[in-house]
Amino acid sequence: MNREEILEMLENRQFKELREVLENTHPVDIAECLEEVDDKHIILVFRMLGKDEAAEVFTEMSNDIREVLLNALTDSEIKEVVDEMYLDDFADLLEEMPANVVDHLLMNTDEETRKQVNALLKYPEDSAGSIMNVEYIAFSKDMTVEDAILKIRQVGINRETIYTCYVLEKRKLIGVVSLKELLISGDSRTIEDIMETNLLFVHTHDDQEEAASMINRYGLIAIPVVDNEMRMVGIVTVDDAMEVIEEETTEDISMMAGIVAPSEETYFATSVWQHAKSRFPWLLFLMLSATLSGLVLGHFEAALIAMPILNTFVPMLTGTGGNCGSQSSTLIIRGLATDEIELRDVFKIIFKELGVALCVGALLAIVNGIRIVIMYHNPILAVTLGITLVCTVVLAKTIGCTLPLAAKKCGLDPALMAAPLITTLVDTGTILLYFSIATKIFGI
Amino acid sequence: MNREEILEMLENRQFKELREVLENTHPVDIAECLEEVDDKHIILVFRMLGKDEAAEVFTEMSNDIREVLLNALTDSEIKEVVDEMYLDDFADLLEEMPANVVDHLLMNTDEETRKQVNALLKYPEDSAGSIMNVEYIAFSKDMTVEDAILKIRQVGINRETIYTCYVLEKRKLIGVVSLKELLISGDSRTIEDIMETNLLFVHTHDDQEEAASMINRYGLIAIPVVDNEMRMVGIVTVDDAMEVIEEETTEDISMMAGIVAPSEETYFATSVWQHAKSRFPWLLFLMLSATLSGLVLGHFEAALIAMPILNTFVPMLTGTGGNCGSQSSTLIIRGLATDEIELRDVFKIIFKELGVALCVGALLAIVNGIRIVIMYHNPILAVTLGITLVCTVVLAKTIGCTLPLAAKKCGLDPALMAAPLITTLVDTGTILLYFSIATKIFGI
Repeated sequence: MNREEILEMLENRQFKELREVLENTHPVDIAECLEEVDDKHIILVFRMLGKDEAAEVFTEMSNDIREVLLNALTDSEIKEVVDEMYLDDFADLLEEMPANVVDHLLMNTDEETRKQVNALLKYPEDSAGSIMNVEYIAFSKDMTVEDAILKIRQVGINRETIYTCYVLEKRKLIGVVSLKELLISGDSRTIEDIMETNLLFVHTHDDQEEAASMINRYGLIAIPVVDNEMRMVGIVTVDDAMEVIEEETTEDISMMAGIVAPSEETYFATSVWQHAKSRFPWLLFLMLSATLSGLVLGHFEAALIAMPILNTFVPMLTGTGGNCGSQSSTLIIRGLATDEIELRDVFKIIFKELGVALCVGALLAIVNGIRIVIMYHNPILAVTLGITLVCTVVLAKTIGCTLPLAAKKCGLDPALMAAPLITTLVDTGTILLYFSIATKIFGI
Repeated sequence: MNREEILEMLENRQFKELREVLENTHPVDIAECLEEVDDKHIILVFRMLGKDEAAEVFTEMSNDIREVLLNALTDSEIKEVVDEMYLDDFADLLEEMPANVVDHLLMNTDEETRKQVNALLKYPEDSAGSIMNVEYIAFSKDMTVEDAILKIRQVGINRETIYTCYVLEKRKLIGVVSLKELLISGDSRTIEDIMETNLLFVHTHDDQEEAASMINRYGLIAIPVVDNEMRMVGIVTVDDAMEVIEEETTEDISMMAGIVAPSEETYFATSVWQHAKSRFPWLLFLMLSATLSGLVLGHFEAALIAMPILNTFVPMLTGTGGNCGSQSSTLIIRGLATDEIELRDVFKIIFKELGVALCVGALLAIVNGIRIVIMYHNPILAVTLGITLVCTVVLAKTIGCTLPLAAKKCGLDPALMAAPLITTLVDTGTILLYFSIATKIFGI
């Protein structure tokens, strides 16, 4: 990363040196660096880049900076960038720019590209079709290995990935050949002879997550995307898959913290008001739900007045319950997300969690009991809290492991059943358990 | 997925059909299927597989099943599998098997392989060296494109990835050439002419996460691993990178839920006692910390006796505080993990979070105020709770966003500063705020 270096050179107007540094800097790093440069300098730096590099840097930039550039560059400059971009990146760009910029972009695009991009844009957001690339290498089954290699050497320059090639018959996908297989086979063998016919593919309307998880599961470099008649329409590549997985994980983690529909923008690009809007709904729901715990607590007012010390243990009990519950729900939600846990495992899971709950609950009860005896010299109180702790932990772990599974069963996102909701539910249960047990034992 | 089909055929002893189905099933799916088969049948199915396929299935299996197999197969069968395995997978296997199985494995390995594996095993766990593959394609800079393609076609069969090739001079890495670049260049050009010299690489002792995140950031298929003298020692491939990212994310998410050192085993492969051990430490720490909130609550016993209704709002206030805090901390922790947020952004973040806190706090205060006026006809109580809510949300969001950044600054894992700890801290603060405000307003 030469970020500091580049910023300094800009400041000192050492343009010749800058051009050299830029040549040796990866487009991803240049794009990141431009985020911190003022508008005038962005255009200056951008114009220093080579044609290929400019398109790559442009693809990696944030939308704000792209807009600045598109408004400042000349038509012919825009055309140069657009011509070098991959079609799927160009389609993304069109989706993300305001209408006037889109018009400007389309004006600088040829008929053919416009048609292909329009086809890409009609796939639903987050579908495999929406992230696929329509440029790939296709063979027919009667080509020889020699022909195939020759074809790659001739057309490969325009294809995003040439490492997996696809065998089509009347536009239908009938086989795949990895470039590795191709290169290690004898020149005179036919494609049909060496192609893999046990096909892995996704449909255009499948979720992009499906494509990404198949690439991950089978260690692929790309996966073909087909329509309902098995006609090949594009490929999703492993770098797109990694991006999808990162996005989906961020979405899951945010949801697990009670943040609704996190924007796909970065933390900083999201406005304060948008942040507030995505965090408020769950907070409101949970605040209102938490009044239930309050009502239960109110119900035991008499017991509290008779024995005020009971109240001091409420935060410890509800806290422990909440933490136990969110440990279990987190493990289950993550297990479901990575396909390590499946719905049919529900009884095995409950059984395991009960075991863990009893171990952990007993240990906590013992430590807490010792503390109570030392601080309050009250063994009965220690026993009361011990029994409550074990019951709370068992309750929390049971709720924590079953709710995500239940959500999955109902077709909801398991990540909804995470710490915030579990904690609120367990709070009420814990308070109810605690005072029921305490009033019994102390005969209040 | 033909899991049901395979299990049924095993049960009905339709071995001929089974062999056919297995031929058309991906090794990953076969391995998953074997997890549900009893030991006797595992060996039976495994012996039906072709040589290549057997090694791939073996690589994908869980350790339990591998052990079963290694104890049942003959020496020559084991040798066949080991010979087909990639060296890095074999090194992993040796690390994970019990000593007697390891001896047995090494007995069936030739001298050369043993030496290479030993070299791999000496890299620290979770380092780039420990996950790299030592088989890759290397060129010298004066080779022509034609020579290079010929070399790949001759030796490529044994290399895990041939899509990026490395240019070495006295064993030092001086350039990379993608297979794509190679194929689209004229036969007579030299490697030096077309190689990329602006190198991306990691060192053997770098964290595996570093290698994975570079592959992700720059969209690579593989990244070279070099020693301190820039001598090339191996490559990390994109499929390994995806695995590392998945593992590290699971580790982060677990830590964020207060689970210490989650085992790398699956949920089910981890024993109840191990689960309990990894969950107990944080629960204990948090239980003891929560007694602080209890003590604060005890401190205000007089106020509670004078006005018992105050107690019913404690769960709502602490719950809201905890949720607000964990929303902020989660966003920051995830932002740090994906490199979207950096340490130097600390003031921008605090400023943003304060804005969000005021918006969200005010909205919650209004909704809650209306509820209180309707239910209790007590506007002063509504105002008291409103002020407390706004203060709590501001406190929670400030703690939630600063602690992960502080942890990062101190070289700790930001994921430690997640919901469980934040909630406990915010609980105490909330109760203190609430009773300070209430006793002032009501003059108790």
